[in-house]
Amino acid sequence: MKNKGVLVVISGFSGSGKGTLIKALLERYPNYALSVSCTTRKPRTGEAEGRDYYFVSEEEFRRMIETGELIEYASYCGRYYGTPRAYVEKRMEEGQDVLLEIEIQGALQIKKKFPDTVLIFVTPPSAAELKRRLTGRGTETEEVIAARLHRAAEEADGMEQYDYLLINDELDACCATLHQIIQCQHHRAFLHREEIAALCGELK
Amino acid sequence: MKNKGVLVVISGFSGSGKGTLIKALLERYPNYALSVSCTTRKPRTGEAEGRDYYFVSEEEFRRMIETGELIEYASYCGRYYGTPRAYVEKRMEEGQDVLLEIEIQGALQIKKKFPDTVLIFVTPPSAAELKRRLTGRGTETEEVIAARLHRAAEEADGMEQYDYLLINDELDACCATLHQIIQCQHHRAFLHREEIAALCGELK
Repeated sequence: MKNKGVLVVISGFSGSGKGTLIKALLERYPNYALSVSCTTRKPRTGEAEGRDYYFVSEEEFRRMIETGELIEYASYCGRYYGTPRAYVEKRMEEGQDVLLEIEIQGALQIKKKFPDTVLIFVTPPSAAELKRRLTGRGTETEEVIAARLHRAAEEADGMEQYDYLLINDELDACCATLHQIIQCQHHRAFLHREEIAALCGELK
Repeated sequence: MKNKGVLVVISGFSGSGKGTLIKALLERYPNYALSVSCTTRKPRTGEAEGRDYYFVSEEEFRRMIETGELIEYASYCGRYYGTPRAYVEKRMEEGQDVLLEIEIQGALQIKKKFPDTVLIFVTPPSAAELKRRLTGRGTETEEVIAARLHRAAEEADGMEQYDYLLINDELDACCATLHQIIQCQHHRAFLHREEIAALCGELK
């Protein structure tokens, strides 16, 4: 089989544990590469250039859009976020499976441009658990809860268009399942058009 | 997660080893049910009613088509082959993953009626190996080889519409991969419309 990497988008609610999940995946399995986004927002305390984000000016970001250097971008709270094309393509060519942790808006752009991308949405174990996480222990104001619900509704808008729904109930099991889902993608027929053509060619 | 079973169609070239593969899958993992087809052809030596096929008359077969008792049917060499609906639906409702070993003609009918079905095509390790298996050791007549190539071309016609291409190079590895591909289907988002609706309902 040809060994080009697979492009994987992982999205999910804030607090679904998707960051921890991705970290575990990278630590436990050797063949993944995590794409680092660029953003026009300022670094927060503890964030490092090139590890958490590439921090760029709005002028630079616009230039990257115009020259096609981003495979997707989206704005959120007045700031831009985007995925640099070069890293993704290079790693996939080298045979690594590339992970993007981005929101639905960008995920659906990617799927449109690259239909072979697999979209995975991470959720809490149940609707009740999601509600519990969002409403907290009853100490938050109504405003804070309303803002969280609003944000979660934005994060969920389009989730039915994802390929897989991954329920994050227990880290180890969830990480193993995520790995399996991604590895199975290597067997998708549409990634093997050349082999199929070669097989059919032998029958003529 | 809801535990309804998944419908899996396994096709492949004659001699791709798909029969052995399915047998290994059933022996090694507990949750699979193999659908038995009905056919209007006569039993061959060693074939048992209800294990290899349900052997029915052409009249009975036509009646089953008319009453909607078959979820797919196809003719091959003047004989009919079909999949009884009742067994498949019952086992899936009970949570078992149901395997159908059928040819492309029937597989594409199933996919049209039940888009959630996963179609898996089993192939030899390479085009050269396929050719070698089909042409044999040089002891067959040209006619025999031509007939085999013709049959294989029929078997391959439409394989690019399958979901997965499974290369059968080594039984143990191939059986484990087949199991993983099927189990990952349980996480497909389209099987969890109700959970997604429930999650989104909590955010309003």
